[in-house]
Amino acid sequence: MDINRGVAEKHFMDWLRDAHAMEEQAETMLTATASRLSHYPDVKARIQEHVEETREQARLLETCIRRRGGSTSALKDLTGRMMAAGQGVAGMFASDEIVKAGLFSYAFEHFEIASYRNLIEAARILGDQETVEICERILMEEQAMADWLQHNMAGMTRVFLERSDQSGAHAKR
Amino acid sequence: MDINRGVAEKHFMDWLRDAHAMEEQAETMLTATASRLSHYPDVKARIQEHVEETREQARLLETCIRRRGGSTSALKDLTGRMMAAGQGVAGMFASDEIVKAGLFSYAFEHFEIASYRNLIEAARILGDQETVEICERILMEEQAMADWLQHNMAGMTRVFLERSDQSGAHAKR
Repeated sequence: MDINRGVAEKHFMDWLRDAHAMEEQAETMLTATASRLSHYPDVKARIQEHVEETREQARLLETCIRRRGGSTSALKDLTGRMMAAGQGVAGMFASDEIVKAGLFSYAFEHFEIASYRNLIEAARILGDQETVEICERILMEEQAMADWLQHNMAGMTRVFLERSDQSGAHAKR
Repeated sequence: MDINRGVAEKHFMDWLRDAHAMEEQAETMLTATASRLSHYPDVKARIQEHVEETREQARLLETCIRRRGGSTSALKDLTGRMMAAGQGVAGMFASDEIVKAGLFSYAFEHFEIASYRNLIEAARILGDQETVEICERILMEEQAMADWLQHNMAGMTRVFLERSDQSGAHAKR
């Protein structure tokens, strides 16, 4: 592999820090969503389970960053903007909150999935086997969450529409 | 099915308009991305192909909206915010532009996939078979684009890292 290791390692560290900040923001958003849901107990329980996974993912990423001599203090632009997007979507939650939360969560899970696929490729190229294994473990958890959403979103939409003549929060969250 | 049709139909129309505005924004973003790429010809070609699909998707959605007596003039909040997010990400394109464009496109495709799954469910509940068929066709195109990205993103990241000692746009776009 004919690469400039110094430049490649700099990108790799940036991407690890992006992923760490992404998981911290995910924890914030998922916790907020779970706390608002009251009439969709299965969704709430699955999100709470993923909050626990997310905390551990952030911790594991931090071990990868520290092992490579970096720190997690720098909040990267990428995640700052995803944060803004997430908060924007969170702020707009309207009469169909449960449906929009599902859409945004599904997109965000795939942003995470793509991030870990890229990290795994970069870690392989740079020979960082521990990071490969950690990111493969995290990727499985993200994929499982995305699969759960995929299998349950249409049902959430159906229940929402069935309840949509009911007042207040019973339908929307 | 025990639903309040008036309320459910109002949500359904909102979601159709959201999807239409989402495709219009997708066309803008994809066209901008394709025009910037110069050293990743396969990626550029696949995006250009999807721009054509996206234009037709917007047209088909408009036929669904008009058939139900609506219009596409109202730009919905949801897409307005996704637009802002998209433009934010587009604006931040940095030294690893191709990698970040891949991440964002992959997440956006899954936002679209989830939107069409929900629309298909709602159209089925409301008995709008034409919209079911149109959204199933669009869903296949979105899934194909997402699959293409999934199979090619790690390779894009590898090529980017291999070129990352080269100056200027050769690596990043």
